[in-house]
Amino acid sequence: MEFFNFVELMPKISIKGKNMPASPIRKLAPFAEQAKKNGVHIYHLNIGQPDIETPHQFWDAIKKIDRKVLEYSPSDGFEEIRKKYAQFFQKRYGLHNLLPEDVLVTTGGSEALMFTLFSILDRDDEIIIPEPLYANYIGFSKSGSINVRPIPTTFENGFALPSIDEFEHVINPKTKAVLICNPNNPTGYAYSDEELHRLKEIVLKHDLFLISDEVYRDFIYSDNQHYTSIFSFPEIEQQAILVDSLSKRFSACGARIGMVATKNKEVLQTVLKFAQQRLSPPTVEQLGAIAMFDVENDYFTKVNIEYRKRRDVLVEGLNAIDGVKCHTPGGAFYCIVQLPVDDADDFCQWMLSDYSYENATVMMAPASGFYATEGKGKNEVRMAYVLNREDLKKAIKCLEEGLKVYNTKK
Amino acid sequence: MEFFNFVELMPKISIKGKNMPASPIRKLAPFAEQAKKNGVHIYHLNIGQPDIETPHQFWDAIKKIDRKVLEYSPSDGFEEIRKKYAQFFQKRYGLHNLLPEDVLVTTGGSEALMFTLFSILDRDDEIIIPEPLYANYIGFSKSGSINVRPIPTTFENGFALPSIDEFEHVINPKTKAVLICNPNNPTGYAYSDEELHRLKEIVLKHDLFLISDEVYRDFIYSDNQHYTSIFSFPEIEQQAILVDSLSKRFSACGARIGMVATKNKEVLQTVLKFAQQRLSPPTVEQLGAIAMFDVENDYFTKVNIEYRKRRDVLVEGLNAIDGVKCHTPGGAFYCIVQLPVDDADDFCQWMLSDYSYENATVMMAPASGFYATEGKGKNEVRMAYVLNREDLKKAIKCLEEGLKVYNTKK
Repeated sequence: MEFFNFVELMPKISIKGKNMPASPIRKLAPFAEQAKKNGVHIYHLNIGQPDIETPHQFWDAIKKIDRKVLEYSPSDGFEEIRKKYAQFFQKRYGLHNLLPEDVLVTTGGSEALMFTLFSILDRDDEIIIPEPLYANYIGFSKSGSINVRPIPTTFENGFALPSIDEFEHVINPKTKAVLICNPNNPTGYAYSDEELHRLKEIVLKHDLFLISDEVYRDFIYSDNQHYTSIFSFPEIEQQAILVDSLSKRFSACGARIGMVATKNKEVLQTVLKFAQQRLSPPTVEQLGAIAMFDVENDYFTKVNIEYRKRRDVLVEGLNAIDGVKCHTPGGAFYCIVQLPVDDADDFCQWMLSDYSYENATVMMAPASGFYATEGKGKNEVRMAYVLNREDLKKAIKCLEEGLKVYNTKK
Repeated sequence: MEFFNFVELMPKISIKGKNMPASPIRKLAPFAEQAKKNGVHIYHLNIGQPDIETPHQFWDAIKKIDRKVLEYSPSDGFEEIRKKYAQFFQKRYGLHNLLPEDVLVTTGGSEALMFTLFSILDRDDEIIIPEPLYANYIGFSKSGSINVRPIPTTFENGFALPSIDEFEHVINPKTKAVLICNPNNPTGYAYSDEELHRLKEIVLKHDLFLISDEVYRDFIYSDNQHYTSIFSFPEIEQQAILVDSLSKRFSACGARIGMVATKNKEVLQTVLKFAQQRLSPPTVEQLGAIAMFDVENDYFTKVNIEYRKRRDVLVEGLNAIDGVKCHTPGGAFYCIVQLPVDDADDFCQWMLSDYSYENATVMMAPASGFYATEGKGKNEVRMAYVLNREDLKKAIKCLEEGLKVYNTKK
């Protein structure tokens, strides 16, 4: 095979992107695949892929598509979906200032985030993100040579927003934006009204953009909590950028439909340039999504009640295990769980490659990947409670037994 | 409105991405929208959106989807579509070494290109691209702080590949890759076997990656031309990265399904990290695409014959206009056209905002945006011959009359 000689001679053929961190949510997938091939059932607590049915309106709509040519849509999405998106936010959340012309439809929340970061941060600029944080924020930032400046939130105080002092401690001339995820992935924390006002003050005082990833906004579990969006503050309307996705709201992760919304026209025009480069979001999925906004009102109530029950089953079950600690998340469908292990990465992989209980095992996301700070989260995992309660109970039992075996071996 | 005061005080709130070039294909869209609102019909020669029917297999398949939950697919695409993709390349193009495990499914060719660039080029690295070039290559590169080093191809020699000397003139320690589009967008040039061998020698000698965007490979019009893919050269299999899309092949632009294929496992694993960050390509469109690969064999023949006729109508019609010059493209469905104007950007905008002939006008893409070199292509436009022949003839007539009026006015 003569070409191997060439390869050996090639100093330049190095893969520049290889320092990109692997997704903690998906990096163990090959071990899970192997376990499945060995006949082991996997309880997937690693990924926010809900088992809730997608509204039938989506499936009905795509069956009724009567087109001959599968054309591009406009780069910012069909006008109809931008209208529906805005109407939905107006009606359901009372955000009456969110208009169709403020909305740009993206290929999932992922693209919305990436285009937003690329639009407002130059290379070597800094963005402040409370940590632990959604792992892919780090990757999107690295793609644009943007530096993530984490500020810690802690297990002990339930991952509440850091103080103004803590923000000001890291703000410097390179700081251009703050990014929050509310309710939070991976912690499940739902920011209070007071905390959002605090954020507003910080970005006003220091002239920063505030990006709010609110893709889990329909998942808030405390009865008395009024949900506040960053879009509610007119004082920062030129600084606020809302990122959204239909994935979780409608259990439609595979649709890859999200959006950026902002009243700042210059930001939206810049995001549009990135959107034009990739031509358009998927056409069929947009046509399905347009119909999906007409879902029955009680869909969200039912789903919310179900998730709250799941949360309670998980939190109670986990805290009953010796050495396991889990706070009670106020929103989203994730929690950070402390385990009695030194190296959760090793433990999570071992659960897939070396262990099964009643022919099943549990897949979790090691939390180290949700920290931008090296060395943090070593004894933590992120769990997504996206399974029915029976399966959650079985997964907890499986984890409990697994911990015993793992810690005996060591 | 008190918050305007804050805005005025904000030195940091600057939009970093605003130097990103606007797409020459889509930047005039607002003028076209306005013309449409005024009741003027637009002949769209600006964008490669074919009017050919998408294979019925796509529409049939999505109507038959029997799922309850619209889930993520694997980040590299469903196994079934990767298999079908590989089989298609094996059978139709004889690329028997292209296996399912070499394929990663992306959200359109755009994403395939972006992830490939991000994977193999670090910030400030250089990529050589023959110019004029597909405008969005510049944008994708800028997003990753990658420098595009253009080398000229000329109208006079039909946009043939530059000589080895011309490549070596710009190769330096920062050069990491060469990118070609074959057949070419925007020139319509189809690289010969000899030219591809020349490229192979260059990347071997200088240890470079060779990215080949072959999304127009089904559109080659000379009878005796054997199409060669960069995937045909075992000597450079560790350096070759193929980028593909279903958009043009199946007239399925709105599906946003493309792929990266390479035998270099490290590159593919790195691309996978970027793919995992954005979670997955669209699910429904993948399910449709899987079925679309089973299209009848004569679909491509019919489409090819139709495009060849369109090309001939366009080239003949354009060259008959005083002062207009158009070469005969060997592939794809674009050509670069020289117009008797000083500023094609201005002319293209004027055609939309100030002119109509028999209540219609022509939208074209100013060619300046297809050059990385400032000042080039000022009297050129890119045209896409994606309309039926009758409409093409009407568009040519409209352009001819428009040129007269425009040049009289000036």
